[in-house]
Amino acid sequence: MNQKKRFQQKKYKNTVALIYIHTYNNTQQKMYKDRTGCKFMKAAIVGATGYGGIELIRLLHNHQEIEHIAVFSSSQEGKTMAQSYPHVTEIIDETLETIDAATLKEYDVVFLSTPPGVSAELSAELVPETKVIDLSGDLRLKRSDIYEAWYGRKSAPNHLLQQAVYGLSEWKKESIKNTSLLSNPGCYPTAILLGLAPLIQEGAIQPEYLIIDAKSGTTGAGRSPSAMTHFSEMNDNFKVYKVNEHKHTPEIEQQLSDWANKEVTVTFTPHLVPMTRGIMATMYAPLTEGWSTEKITALYESVYADQPFVRVRENGTFPFTKEVYGTNYCDMSFSIDERTGRITVVSVIDNLVKGASGQAVQNMNLMFGFEEGTGLNTIPIYP
Amino acid sequence: MNQKKRFQQKKYKNTVALIYIHTYNNTQQKMYKDRTGCKFMKAAIVGATGYGGIELIRLLHNHQEIEHIAVFSSSQEGKTMAQSYPHVTEIIDETLETIDAATLKEYDVVFLSTPPGVSAELSAELVPETKVIDLSGDLRLKRSDIYEAWYGRKSAPNHLLQQAVYGLSEWKKESIKNTSLLSNPGCYPTAILLGLAPLIQEGAIQPEYLIIDAKSGTTGAGRSPSAMTHFSEMNDNFKVYKVNEHKHTPEIEQQLSDWANKEVTVTFTPHLVPMTRGIMATMYAPLTEGWSTEKITALYESVYADQPFVRVRENGTFPFTKEVYGTNYCDMSFSIDERTGRITVVSVIDNLVKGASGQAVQNMNLMFGFEEGTGLNTIPIYP
Amino acid sequence: MNQKKRFQQKKYKNTVALIYIHTYNNTQQKMYKDRTGCKFMKAAIVGATGYGGIELIRLLHNHQEIEHIAVFSSSQEGKTMAQSYPHVTEIIDETLETIDAATLKEYDVVFLSTPPGVSAELSAELVPETKVIDLSGDLRLKRSDIYEAWYGRKSAPNHLLQQAVYGLSEWKKESIKNTSLLSNPGCYPTAILLGLAPLIQEGAIQPEYLIIDAKSGTTGAGRSPSAMTHFSEMNDNFKVYKVNEHKHTPEIEQQLSDWANKEVTVTFTPHLVPMTRGIMATMYAPLTEGWSTEKITALYESVYADQPFVRVRENGTFPFTKEVYGTNYCDMSFSIDERTGRITVVSVIDNLVKGASGQAVQNMNLMFGFEEGTGLNTIPIYP
Amino acid sequence: MNQKKRFQQKKYKNTVALIYIHTYNNTQQKMYKDRTGCKFMKAAIVGATGYGGIELIRLLHNHQEIEHIAVFSSSQEGKTMAQSYPHVTEIIDETLETIDAATLKEYDVVFLSTPPGVSAELSAELVPETKVIDLSGDLRLKRSDIYEAWYGRKSAPNHLLQQAVYGLSEWKKESIKNTSLLSNPGCYPTAILLGLAPLIQEGAIQPEYLIIDAKSGTTGAGRSPSAMTHFSEMNDNFKVYKVNEHKHTPEIEQQLSDWANKEVTVTFTPHLVPMTRGIMATMYAPLTEGWSTEKITALYESVYADQPFVRVRENGTFPFTKEVYGTNYCDMSFSIDERTGRITVVSVIDNLVKGASGQAVQNMNLMFGFEEGTGLNTIPIYP
Repeated sequence: MNQKKRFQQKKYKNTVALIYIHTYNNTQQKMYKDRTGCKFMKAAIVGATGYGGIELIRLLHNHQEIEHIAVFSSSQEGKTMAQSYPHVTEIIDETLETIDAATLKEYDVVFLSTPPGVSAELSAELVPETKVIDLSGDLRLKRSDIYEAWYGRKSAPNHLLQQAVYGLSEWKKESIKNTSLLSNPGCYPTAILLGLAPLIQEGAIQPEYLIIDAKSGTTGAGRSPSAMTHFSEMNDNFKVYKVNEHKHTPEIEQQLSDWANKEVTVTFTPHLVPMTRGIMATMYAPLTEGWSTEKITALYESVYADQPFVRVRENGTFPFTKEVYGTNYCDMSFSIDERTGRITVVSVIDNLVKGASGQAVQNMNLMFGFEEGTGLNTIPIYP
Repeated sequence: MNQKKRFQQKKYKNTVALIYIHTYNNTQQKMYKDRTGCKFMKAAIVGATGYGGIELIRLLHNHQEIEHIAVFSSSQEGKTMAQSYPHVTEIIDETLETIDAATLKEYDVVFLSTPPGVSAELSAELVPETKVIDLSGDLRLKRSDIYEAWYGRKSAPNHLLQQAVYGLSEWKKESIKNTSLLSNPGCYPTAILLGLAPLIQEGAIQPEYLIIDAKSGTTGAGRSPSAMTHFSEMNDNFKVYKVNEHKHTPEIEQQLSDWANKEVTVTFTPHLVPMTRGIMATMYAPLTEGWSTEKITALYESVYADQPFVRVRENGTFPFTKEVYGTNYCDMSFSIDERTGRITVVSVIDNLVKGASGQAVQNMNLMFGFEEGTGLNTIPIYP
Repeated sequence: MNQKKRFQQKKYKNTVALIYIHTYNNTQQKMYKDRTGCKFMKAAIVGATGYGGIELIRLLHNHQEIEHIAVFSSSQEGKTMAQSYPHVTEIIDETLETIDAATLKEYDVVFLSTPPGVSAELSAELVPETKVIDLSGDLRLKRSDIYEAWYGRKSAPNHLLQQAVYGLSEWKKESIKNTSLLSNPGCYPTAILLGLAPLIQEGAIQPEYLIIDAKSGTTGAGRSPSAMTHFSEMNDNFKVYKVNEHKHTPEIEQQLSDWANKEVTVTFTPHLVPMTRGIMATMYAPLTEGWSTEKITALYESVYADQPFVRVRENGTFPFTKEVYGTNYCDMSFSIDERTGRITVVSVIDNLVKGASGQAVQNMNLMFGFEEGTGLNTIPIYP
Repeated sequence: MNQKKRFQQKKYKNTVALIYIHTYNNTQQKMYKDRTGCKFMKAAIVGATGYGGIELIRLLHNHQEIEHIAVFSSSQEGKTMAQSYPHVTEIIDETLETIDAATLKEYDVVFLSTPPGVSAELSAELVPETKVIDLSGDLRLKRSDIYEAWYGRKSAPNHLLQQAVYGLSEWKKESIKNTSLLSNPGCYPTAILLGLAPLIQEGAIQPEYLIIDAKSGTTGAGRSPSAMTHFSEMNDNFKVYKVNEHKHTPEIEQQLSDWANKEVTVTFTPHLVPMTRGIMATMYAPLTEGWSTEKITALYESVYADQPFVRVRENGTFPFTKEVYGTNYCDMSFSIDERTGRITVVSVIDNLVKGASGQAVQNMNLMFGFEEGTGLNTIPIYP
């Protein structure tokens, strides 16, 4: 412990936070006083030892508005983060605390990266005293019956379902800015909905024939070791799973139906790729009358012109998953096949960033009035 | 090399070939009536240093009908196989010979694993004096205009296109048995056509809405190093390529149209998976009236009951690519989504075996009257 | 089950076994009678659901002396092999049986691919009524005290330890031929001992400075999922483990000491490579006086001239792990550094074949008087 | 491109740079006294399309002292960076410029990430007008004869070799601060020298028996596709190369000899791991008298107490390569084997960061008087 203390002093810990305020104000002192009663942001991460949790820590650590990150766990209380994740040795010194609503209320924002059921309960206690960003699937569906049919368990109370804002950042900015309870989208739905939004909203495709073939890296399956993700059986292997049965299906349908103003039912197949991070969604639908490559290109470009994290690729080129590695970007492109009258849309994200923790930070930025890209404007790590 | 000679004697080289003939009946003994005093099967592989070529060597080496394998190359004549592929050191001692039609005619069977254009020329000289199995795409399409549109080069002479039998082993057995010129199917078409055959032939799906999303290991891209398959940029990455432009599209459509008795146009998207071998095709189409899970199950099982290399998986389970690694199997399964009325079919093969060299050996077996599985009845290497 | 039965008939199941006898005898009938009292080989695999077990099945399935393979498991009795390993669907129909010494005695050979402690007990009951090949580490060390120090558990009874023959095939042929109780070497020791044997036996190196740096694919860690081998944390990662603490250390030292006629203590470090199969051992030692590249080359070549599974690579080239993938080969090479007077030896094997099940089959061949390479003379699967 | 321009405005481009200076003291303000009206740091990267170049862009893009990054290439002039690396689309808009000394002189710092020979020439023209950080191997060795023996080509002029400071950041701080010509260390030497420094300097090991077994991800081999790094032949494979012949050997020896005050000759073996990034060096040597685990622990901790990028791991645990992924950390640990009297040291880095571009940025920080960790204080991306 002595050693750790010593190292602690020499490492660069959130010094950016000390720096930032100068941008907006004249002097550092003033800034400290002005800032909503003289305090910095304090963030709590519940479920910090999962992949969503550790990715939040990585992103928030370099976020200039965050002064302090506290970590909570139901299974590893008392351990340091470095005991669970040696790669944060001498960078993150926090000890995992017991989950407790009273304690959590003291934080400006609480991220819930928890197993099913936990967030439904905790959120009710924390909101609106503090702001909650829920990365679990507890609050994504508006209808209890649909939740229960697909998740096979009791849903959260209906008022919470209605209260929670579905945080697809690019499309819900106003609601996000005004909520204290945000439900962060699933990884597959994020890639899929961003890719399809322009087409569905403009009626450019016939949604009743929509086919979604998605491929994910293994971190989407979480940190618990399993036969499915055992290295010896996942390496050099390509897997399909939960055909017509994945829980993200109703989440995708709910949003598409909302945009289409009619009920949309999709075919959605998830696959597992022998890679750590990344999702690619390849989506197929027949075009409606009157759409050309030029018109669709113009549509995508205008729709996403002001969205810092959506990159519409030049027509004729397609993104690969690694080209967004470690970042909050969603890259997309499309191709129209004149022979069949169908459009193929390809969309990629990093499942742990834009598909989880990155979008959560983007949503936090919106909820607190920070610039949307704060802490997220890095270049993908490539190769 | 003195050393090589010495080792040559101690290694096990095709001793199985001495054994086999006794097992079989009179027809076969007649075929080799002069065997003890005379000749075994001699096979020539043209383009032996590509992945198709080396895989043929692996399979034919343990094929009990093959006495001798000769190897030919246009670029590496004079080198030994072990100089090109150290893993055959002390097993295969052959030296790469210059490609020459007169020489090739002396072999019982000639495998052409050659770049576009070569086989169109060579085949004309070799057939019918010897039997030719062409693994290139030169002779797969019946129509010159379609070949030229998709391949961007002049097609083989029309009479060769018509003469060549498209060797999808499970569905062309009679034609295969009677031809001297066999065109071996492409890797993607093999996985796709085997998976769709029962449905298309029985009219169980509406082919005009057929979507084929296929994923392949990198060996499908061949042995030449490229930016696309550079390890540093392919590892931990998932790629899509040739969207609506892959040459296998017309090959798939030609066969589906033939089965459907009407022109079928498909949407086909190939992807590259960070793995060495394997193809998974995920295929989507609306069912026609009257088909249930039970009926489709019964259909697949009866259609493939006598096909040794097709394994219809138990309903509710799906195959992974590694489960056919190194073997000639094509495993498949399906799921019907009652909500959408669509069927999802999943089919996997090893692209270098059933998708290339294995199916070529299966076709050779059929062409020469050997048992279909000779040299191919091994267990997938797993994990 | 109905379906399975039907398929069962069409698949190629050990037909090679029916064929083989013709080679040596005149008719099939005579052969059946003559054969050591009219029976074929029946093999039992205990612990069939582990990686050692399934690899034994793969190798024995194509072994021409094996008529029947029975499978036993302590945890999955009643299941079929295909339920545990879908890749053997329609190939292996056997059901996992309860482990029972009386039943096992009916087999010609029993392979024990079991956790620590099981084999120590079972072997005592089975030998000498049947022949036992033990792939666990229970019987590899001759001294109880050393076993107990490194394995942290009670050793097998001393008489069993003394009775068991350490089955390093290339170096123990006479003992192996005459034993009923064979202890199959560990994966690391196999690669290491084969690489060092010529040098140690001839006194060409100073063993007191021997450094062994070994790298293994993850299948060496077995089939149980763990954090260490979770795909998300093993992919794109390289790990070191059990530094100066690996159980294979005393096994290596025991054999080296025996050859050197003095006690040898080594430094041995194992590492985990993000790959499925393969071991590379890189070994370093100072040469004694009078050894040149030419002399060492001649030494290796003469020592291994008659060993079908050892391939000494041409000086100046080195083997890669994939060049022995799926086979029983051990490839090796070396380099002498004139500047330091040290030799570097590199040796590679497939850890599941030559490092486990392949060497076990090689040992079975020797124990039963079959040709040493029976069932093993295949070409590495590459790429 | 109209589109690009539009997007350019919405993306977050170095806004951090506007922030930073206020934090710091007078010295720095002076340095940029003309900032608002005048100039920030301008950096040039020569050889920007290689992996070293693109990694420099990633790191400098988020470096608060850098206002502008210009990119130069001898082969791709006129292309945008995004054409070479699609992952920087809409982030880096720069076009690759022709390499020209006069132009380069206008930059505050020039990074040379160039093939052999280029830097030797360019450096002479640029220094001391501007500061040069050379990532090639041209200037690492002090002795021409040794350079020429190992590199097989003519060395840079002797005065340049003498002038260049070898930039092993942790050990050369004073020299680095005062030089205009910095030679950035090789990837292997960085991991190895940092791991061995405390032991060699204190005489704790006998250097004449030093064995270095190193393993690297494939990015160390650069961006040019080759058979060695073709995905199909590198995946699931482990390779050894340049045994006793790697160019980094004399670089390691030069520094070790300097520290040991006598000539040190090492055995060094590099290996290629099927992963993208990362180096692990496992190093072995006999301890001299009087060293215990406690003493060595204390030594490492005290030596590296003030080095922000060296993390000495808790005794008994070892670092894995992924635990420093994408960052400038060098993590290390050791184990003493009482049985042999030898110490095993394990050291890991990201070969593209601490092994190349990260250390280059660290050196730039030192050369310009910025805080050492500026732009580098991120958390490793894990998993």
